[in-house]
Amino acid sequence: MLTDLFSPSVQHSLDLAGIFVFAISGGLLAVRKNFDVFGIAVLAEATALGGGIIRDVIIGAVPPAAFTDLGYFLTPLVAAVCVIFLHPQVERINGAVNVFDAAGLGLFCVAGTTKAYAYGLGLTSSVALGLVTAAGGGVLRDILANEVPSLLRWDRDLYAVPAIIGATIVALLIRLEELTVVTGSAAAATAFVLRLLAMHYGWRAPRAYHRRSSATEEQI
Amino acid sequence: MLTDLFSPSVQHSLDLAGIFVFAISGGLLAVRKNFDVFGIAVLAEATALGGGIIRDVIIGAVPPAAFTDLGYFLTPLVAAVCVIFLHPQVERINGAVNVFDAAGLGLFCVAGTTKAYAYGLGLTSSVALGLVTAAGGGVLRDILANEVPSLLRWDRDLYAVPAIIGATIVALLIRLEELTVVTGSAAAATAFVLRLLAMHYGWRAPRAYHRRSSATEEQI
Amino acid sequence: MLTDLFSPSVQHSLDLAGIFVFAISGGLLAVRKNFDVFGIAVLAEATALGGGIIRDVIIGAVPPAAFTDLGYFLTPLVAAVCVIFLHPQVERINGAVNVFDAAGLGLFCVAGTTKAYAYGLGLTSSVALGLVTAAGGGVLRDILANEVPSLLRWDRDLYAVPAIIGATIVALLIRLEELTVVTGSAAAATAFVLRLLAMHYGWRAPRAYHRRSSATEEQI
Repeated sequence: MLTDLFSPSVQHSLDLAGIFVFAISGGLLAVRKNFDVFGIAVLAEATALGGGIIRDVIIGAVPPAAFTDLGYFLTPLVAAVCVIFLHPQVERINGAVNVFDAAGLGLFCVAGTTKAYAYGLGLTSSVALGLVTAAGGGVLRDILANEVPSLLRWDRDLYAVPAIIGATIVALLIRLEELTVVTGSAAAATAFVLRLLAMHYGWRAPRAYHRRSSATEEQI
Repeated sequence: MLTDLFSPSVQHSLDLAGIFVFAISGGLLAVRKNFDVFGIAVLAEATALGGGIIRDVIIGAVPPAAFTDLGYFLTPLVAAVCVIFLHPQVERINGAVNVFDAAGLGLFCVAGTTKAYAYGLGLTSSVALGLVTAAGGGVLRDILANEVPSLLRWDRDLYAVPAIIGATIVALLIRLEELTVVTGSAAAATAFVLRLLAMHYGWRAPRAYHRRSSATEEQI
Repeated sequence: MLTDLFSPSVQHSLDLAGIFVFAISGGLLAVRKNFDVFGIAVLAEATALGGGIIRDVIIGAVPPAAFTDLGYFLTPLVAAVCVIFLHPQVERINGAVNVFDAAGLGLFCVAGTTKAYAYGLGLTSSVALGLVTAAGGGVLRDILANEVPSLLRWDRDLYAVPAIIGATIVALLIRLEELTVVTGSAAAATAFVLRLLAMHYGWRAPRAYHRRSSATEEQI
């Protein structure tokens, strides 16, 4: 079955790992914004679970998995506690956090695409929901922190593209009836590696035609 | 049947036209905010489809039409490509864009009201969801771009009022059992023309009592 | 039955009272942001009904109660009219508004927790949705007004904690099969009084470890 791409316990462990690292990124932004400890916990929960909740509400899988599995709910709280007490150390290993975040991106774009397809959506819509699952939590994090979502900014390394590529590979595998634990893992790994390369080499997407020379964000 | 106010192919063409012009408005804001090409595409999609998705999630029509009809998904991407390569020209025909946006407003407030009623909501709630359908995408656009929604600002020409009037006319027509393709079109045309007049004459809504003399936005 | 903790007419009156005071808080922020009268009405509606709508969409209770009960929809409009004509007077009795808002917080955290449990969610998730019901409207208000949600800010008096405590008491009462109109009211009263005390004594939550000496919000 598509939603059980991996054995349940393996899938669950991978989900929790992805949730944990996304929660760390939410908690760190909350610390930088000077939120209190409850604000840190709320932002960690929203970042980690937001993408999956939006996907589940859209495909009609309610209540969302985030509200039926206690582990999904408690993991971001653990991440929040780590951030509250250890944020200088966590910031120092920012590279490690980014690596885990990239792993979460890879896992979630694959899991989101397969779950949407299992609920009857077409392949293109499933790819879109794979991106929503992988990137939606980060967008919600930035909206709650009153920042322009880093997903949309031209001065950030590629984030959507690795997720779109990973989700598209999954859709092609579904079409070819070749989606297995091995090929699905390869899709997740592709998104993961592309994101790491984008960070390492500073890959960025172009802006609109004729705008590439202006370096500062315009105020409108 | 209420949701098939127009023949399916006519309705679908009108929907796609409304989606296209809303996507243009999202794409243009993304260019002004200096987003990269993926940010432009995401903002075009969110602006064009956001109102309908919120309405469908609220009335329980999941997955939303935006995820089951490939044309709804691809149209904003076409609009995004146009904006990316032609934004100076598109800006120059801003008047034309505003006319199309007004047409989208008229069409969507009618379509949103009839769909909500067809799903069993009362007439007042259907009017509210007509407004959500017509204006929700623009609010989502402004939230994602980290701007105060132009729907709420006193220094913008009337936008909600034409949509509310159009949706209210549709609700009255439903009540009187007089909603046909002709009367429904007249409701959409009324909203369309009111919005054009509001832009042409700079019609604005008043602010709270005793506040009309202070011209600048206060910081709180 | 859990959702009918109080007799229907009592519950309905309490709901409307909570909706009214939340709508006042939304309308006052809209006035401060210089929104027009429609912006004031929209922000009043979103603040008053937002938390309940998000909860209902997540637990699958669609269409949400806010769209099936006309009183829920009209009450924020009444509040908006009051704010538009009487905002200087309303601001002057800000203390009274805060007391009502605290009452709404207490009522909504209890109502949200019991409704989520009645729809089959676990006790922990029900507590989370109690908090979403009580505080979600205020977060939506601040997002629409392009402000950092006051729920998350360290320089605001405790708001989430009283709601979490009230919701947790309800969950324990459900577990012990002791949830009655008396004990449920006591839980709401506890959240209410804790919020009043937090405002009176300026109780605040700590920030992350090692950050307590920096008094200004950092820009990132």
